[in-house]
Amino acid sequence: MNPSPKPLCILVLSGDMEKGLAAMNLSLAAAAGGAPVTLFFSFWGLNFLKRPGAKARGAILQRMMGWMNGDSATSQRLGRFHLGGVGRWAMGRLMRAKQMPSFLNSLALAKPLGVRVVACSTSLEVMGLTREELIPEVDAVEGAAAFLQVAGEANIVTLS
Amino acid sequence: MNPSPKPLCILVLSGDMEKGLAAMNLSLAAAAGGAPVTLFFSFWGLNFLKRPGAKARGAILQRMMGWMNGDSATSQRLGRFHLGGVGRWAMGRLMRAKQMPSFLNSLALAKPLGVRVVACSTSLEVMGLTREELIPEVDAVEGAAAFLQVAGEANIVTLS
Amino acid sequence: MNPSPKPLCILVLSGDMEKGLAAMNLSLAAAAGGAPVTLFFSFWGLNFLKRPGAKARGAILQRMMGWMNGDSATSQRLGRFHLGGVGRWAMGRLMRAKQMPSFLNSLALAKPLGVRVVACSTSLEVMGLTREELIPEVDAVEGAAAFLQVAGEANIVTLS
Repeated sequence: MNPSPKPLCILVLSGDMEKGLAAMNLSLAAAAGGAPVTLFFSFWGLNFLKRPGAKARGAILQRMMGWMNGDSATSQRLGRFHLGGVGRWAMGRLMRAKQMPSFLNSLALAKPLGVRVVACSTSLEVMGLTREELIPEVDAVEGAAAFLQVAGEANIVTLS
Repeated sequence: MNPSPKPLCILVLSGDMEKGLAAMNLSLAAAAGGAPVTLFFSFWGLNFLKRPGAKARGAILQRMMGWMNGDSATSQRLGRFHLGGVGRWAMGRLMRAKQMPSFLNSLALAKPLGVRVVACSTSLEVMGLTREELIPEVDAVEGAAAFLQVAGEANIVTLS
Repeated sequence: MNPSPKPLCILVLSGDMEKGLAAMNLSLAAAAGGAPVTLFFSFWGLNFLKRPGAKARGAILQRMMGWMNGDSATSQRLGRFHLGGVGRWAMGRLMRAKQMPSFLNSLALAKPLGVRVVACSTSLEVMGLTREELIPEVDAVEGAAAFLQVAGEANIVTLS
């Protein structure tokens, strides 16, 4: 309905399942309406872009953190009521019952609509991850300056 | 002082008491300055709009989640130092001592100033809630597309 | 590259170390590109502005909360994998190994670039803190109306 809808730029700093779902819900709605959408994943948000079984390299601390922080594009903890995994299981079942797409399903729908997926270069380095450990849906690895440029004239939504 | 202040659009994704208070603090300041304000509550943020004693319906999982997630417009957990309810009690006492309004008190002040309160339709469905379980202050039940339209030319603040 | 880059206004509501680092990372990138930057710290975000050993005054509840909430400009808990301090220690080591500046180091870099640091007046009062308990890098103590005025034509990033 809007001739040239405002670009949307979403910054995902959290690795909680809820934040990824909210990011994709907004992205799909915006892209379906013709808006350019950029998803920028930083810090724990990078979990959404990790291949299942991704391995952190580097110092022992990075490898230990990578081992603890085992979430990936296919499985994330809930920010509330995680309950050692029971909450995640329940939420997953509810979403399937309601035919709501998972994070990765939504991303598959979003990519053909032009949604751009960016991983934060600084966070990758701190976590000891390389591009190879990320899912193929990632379009680029960029830093804060790139985010600010995209954010310039966009609506910014921060999920932290 | 500003002839036509920029609209403010607040997205509340968290159910933590702090986020609801911040949302209302900003809403009141913006509305008092003449800005159109829309509050959009999604995911756990919906807790702020639930009647005390609201019941989730649907599958057993939804009812169980509703039972666990007992927060409502009159009582929310703190994101930090909840301490099984002690933190909430202490914060409530502090706020009364400082004569700071609660979430619901602020909402009562905000509504006559034209602040619009929207509940996210997708979240309601996942949680097994209907309009009847929400407080009367809710103006509409809408989805992501509606949020994006309101957000279009507004300042967006995300509380997640 | 941009003749007059858009101002950046960051609202920090969380006291988690990750949020402070993200705020400073964005601030430095924006200020280096010539954008006016304002950092607004509210609620638990005020922890980033507290002198080490800052003391809350007032009612016993405020002093107790101040005692529990011992984080300061030099030491904050991690939002994820805090693990009783082990996560913070590990993250601190990783950052030093990667030569990434701490929150306070970044702030020292940001101030000469014109980054403005504001503490929320309402939050200060609730927490029983005065200007004297804050680090000297704080430029002003202001309320929600001041935030909205700065946010007016800026890009807003919320870290909550």
